Amino acid sequence: MPHIEVNNDFPGIRGLMAFRPETAEPLSALAEVLLRDNEGLSRAERELIASRVSYLNDCFYCHNSHGELACVYLDGDRDLVDQVRKDYQHAAISGKLTIAGKVQQSGLAVQPEDIALARREGATDKDIHDTVLIAAAFCLFNRYVDGLAATTPTDLSTYPARARQVLERGYGSHIYSSAQPVR
Amino acid sequence: MPHIEVNNDFPGIRGLMAFRPETAEPLSALAEVLLRDNEGLSRAERELIASRVSYLNDCFYCHNSHGELACVYLDGDRDLVDQVRKDYQHAAISGKLTIAGKVQQSGLAVQPEDIALARREGATDKDIHDTVLIAAAFCLFNRYVDGLAATTPTDLSTYPARARQVLERGYGSHIYSSAQPVR
Repeated sequence: MPHIEVNNDFPGIRGLMAFRPETAEPLSALAEVLLRDNEGLSRAERELIASRVSYLNDCFYCHNSHGELACVYLDGDRDLVDQVRKDYQHAAISGKLTIAGKVQQSGLAVQPEDIALARREGATDKDIHDTVLIAAAFCLFNRYVDGLAATTPTDLSTYPARARQVLERGYGSHIYSSAQPVR
Repeated sequence: MPHIEVNNDFPGIRGLMAFRPETAEPLSALAEVLLRDNEGLSRAERELIASRVSYLNDCFYCHNSHGELACVYLDGDRDLVDQVRKDYQHAAISGKLTIAGKVQQSGLAVQPEDIALARREGATDKDIHDTVLIAAAFCLFNRYVDGLAATTPTDLSTYPARARQVLERGYGSHIYSSAQPVR
């Protein structure tokens, strides 16, 4: 049961956003830029970083929903999504995932050698910026969802439909203000 | 030295924001709502929660800059600001600070009894929502500043001038786009 009465039927973070649209607007705008920008980091990389950090934060809803999005962008390559969450060092973007994992612990944990590794793999200043900010943002989103014990769907078969909706419409205000929430 | 070249002279998070205005806009809008809303939690309480979480995250820049803001709202009561950071259990808003401290660890650490304690002290659903989201947001902001090793002023005598600027003008886009950054 959620810690507060949100007075709506939206699942997960969407119910919290519908409860407080004043904060939902900048939060959804932040997600839209960080996860849908297609320059530098690909959308698949952005969702993989989100899923990995959410996995480290033990946030069931976020690691599965963003893992599902990554899977869609990767044409159904669920093995890579699982590898990034659980055994990222063998994934193709391991330098960026190393930075993201350090940020999940603490900003102060990021060392110059972590940045150097990502640069050797081709990361630009903007890529490094976005990697750090996506990881930091999911330290917010995960705590928001679980800190208020938001109701989250436990049936993973419902996640692909939601992923397709985000794929088509992004992270705009429809995610917390549409008349008919898609579960 | 920052991990990326931000190409501007703004200190702390403001330099990162000027580097990437697309994400700065929702981040500053989020701070404006969460820290400047004056209904429910007072502005002093909001800044105290921000300072406490930043202190727990060992983020020098954020815990001092938001502590300075809290001090201004509290008519110069620096002892209370220090107490909240280091010995919060005797402060007047200890229930909300307990929740904020749990969120700093993990969203999953927040227990129903933490919420019940805050409610006994008069917290509403909106107050609890904002407490969790301010704490979660500073888990983002702290990681953003320190994860990119942003240049931060170490001379505490410069913080009051900055606090007065925020007091007068809020957390809007002027914090990263004005021609003459106030240090």
